[in-house]
Amino acid sequence: MTEVTSRNVAGDKPIQIHDPTLRDGHHAVRHSLGAEQLRAYALAADAAGVPVVEVGHGNGLGASSLQVGRARLSDDEMLTVTRDALTNSKLGVFMLPGWGTIEDLKNAIAHDVDLVRIGTHCTESSLAERHLGFLREQGVEAHAVLLMSHMATPGKLAEHCARLVEFGATGVGIMDSAGHYLPADVTERITAMCGAVDVPVIFHGHNNLGMAVANSIAAADAGASILDACARGFGAGAGNTQLEVLVPVLERVGYRTGIDLYGLLDAADVAERDLMPAPPTVDSISIVSGLAGVFSGFKTPVLDVSAREGVDPRDVFFELGRRQAVAGQEDLIVDVALALRGAGTGDRS
Amino acid sequence: MTEVTSRNVAGDKPIQIHDPTLRDGHHAVRHSLGAEQLRAYALAADAAGVPVVEVGHGNGLGASSLQVGRARLSDDEMLTVTRDALTNSKLGVFMLPGWGTIEDLKNAIAHDVDLVRIGTHCTESSLAERHLGFLREQGVEAHAVLLMSHMATPGKLAEHCARLVEFGATGVGIMDSAGHYLPADVTERITAMCGAVDVPVIFHGHNNLGMAVANSIAAADAGASILDACARGFGAGAGNTQLEVLVPVLERVGYRTGIDLYGLLDAADVAERDLMPAPPTVDSISIVSGLAGVFSGFKTPVLDVSAREGVDPRDVFFELGRRQAVAGQEDLIVDVALALRGAGTGDRS
Repeated sequence: MTEVTSRNVAGDKPIQIHDPTLRDGHHAVRHSLGAEQLRAYALAADAAGVPVVEVGHGNGLGASSLQVGRARLSDDEMLTVTRDALTNSKLGVFMLPGWGTIEDLKNAIAHDVDLVRIGTHCTESSLAERHLGFLREQGVEAHAVLLMSHMATPGKLAEHCARLVEFGATGVGIMDSAGHYLPADVTERITAMCGAVDVPVIFHGHNNLGMAVANSIAAADAGASILDACARGFGAGAGNTQLEVLVPVLERVGYRTGIDLYGLLDAADVAERDLMPAPPTVDSISIVSGLAGVFSGFKTPVLDVSAREGVDPRDVFFELGRRQAVAGQEDLIVDVALALRGAGTGDRS
Repeated sequence: MTEVTSRNVAGDKPIQIHDPTLRDGHHAVRHSLGAEQLRAYALAADAAGVPVVEVGHGNGLGASSLQVGRARLSDDEMLTVTRDALTNSKLGVFMLPGWGTIEDLKNAIAHDVDLVRIGTHCTESSLAERHLGFLREQGVEAHAVLLMSHMATPGKLAEHCARLVEFGATGVGIMDSAGHYLPADVTERITAMCGAVDVPVIFHGHNNLGMAVANSIAAADAGASILDACARGFGAGAGNTQLEVLVPVLERVGYRTGIDLYGLLDAADVAERDLMPAPPTVDSISIVSGLAGVFSGFKTPVLDVSAREGVDPRDVFFELGRRQAVAGQEDLIVDVALALRGAGTGDRS
């Protein structure tokens, strides 16, 4: 500690950084990034040596819609400009089966994507079978991630990861979509997953409990070899793991990312200046949704319904957590609010 | 993890939260809080059951000055309004000998403060001897903290803590003033300190490397029994440990703070609405100053001097870290910038 920490401290354990700033971060600005913004950030990330740059609508290929928000640019436009900007970094895309289809995958392949990630709810890996099979046939590198992973046990996650590998995934992992994990939770899950598969294991953190960096380090220490992180923590709600913090911390504890620190800070400065009005912060609702283990995308409807029904939105989040609500079940919010109103606010334990 | 996390989860290991939102947080708004702001936050923290509310100029009693900034209110005014607002929480003050004097302590005692903290640089505990002795004579509870503590070894910190206890401190601890620590660093230091003294041990974190909450948990696990944290992370540079995140995370891992979660979130909402235009964020310079182990208050002069001399401010920070620069040595910034300019920017390893 009294020794100097300089620009070029680097460890020797290789780890791969996967950067979804231009995809998951897109949630923070309602999918509104334009071509010049995508280009500026992609060029900076490429220059810094970031291994994978993922781009798209926040919900992935094919997801632009009235329901979750229309992206400013089409998938075609986003893929064209980002492909053009990347010289060394791989171009990645994300897809949730149901939002996107095989046709969207074909289109992405036509744009020469290097890596496709397929996401499913943590207990629904079978939804990815057909898409992973298609990508294997096409010879495209395909990874798979389990969303809202705190809702399944380590054993179940390990089983689903093994199944995803059978389907063709050459990398598998978990997202802490609700920002619910503490480091010991991550250690337990990544350890179980690493014991079940022989492919690289992925961890994707969120910062609702201020633990995104610490959880990512715990994941690496437990054997994860691909970590997701976004410039400035750019992402939905409390944000994702902050890329330019994670990288030097990883290097300091003995990992080697291959990323140049100053280049990375320059990319973060581009994100700060060109992509976002202000970075994500951890507000009270983010904390409650993280504690309750509920997707932070519920924030706006929970606040609206709670105000209308005269109940405490924090109670609504905790009750949604008890009921294991997941994205798509927004109708539950009204049920919960009415039940709490009936029970009276004095009884909100 | 699949069990529900609700409002009232609490562990059974007692731990005390010390809240310097209205003192250390004051740095973030150039010591400009007015009486109504102090009152609003103190009332909310008191209602939530926060054990200690610390108030004052960011640099403590007597520090308001042209050099580090004049506070909007005098110490007298700040103490009067905060004392008046607190029913259950203790009223705390902070003093750096040299900035404040025995006269300032007498004045604070006349305002009926419950707890005085004396701070010194990590290797200068002897500077606190006279003040701690005075407070012991007066029968006022007195704690002592070592600043920029990453610049001393665990053994040295333990020695200085033991000396502070001899001087009269009934609580001793460390501040991670530069935001340089990772959890293993904290564990090592707190363990050494707990082995050397029989009084409560204090940890005060900063968030430059995204680790303030994780470091605070590491401190508790190593035996610290008093943790500092500020609403919304309100503080200089990248900010302090975020209070309303730390408390529920502590409770989840088995500690008992005695603080009501909803009351605490309400206090954080008061801070968000009434105290700050925007909470602290981790920008590129915060990361570099944390990595380099340099006080983040150097940011503005480093940026100014670097622009003037045409050198990279990040190089300046790393070189200041190598030279073990501490607050008060701002003249070094010019020396470093000139040396780097002489060496040429191409040689900035």
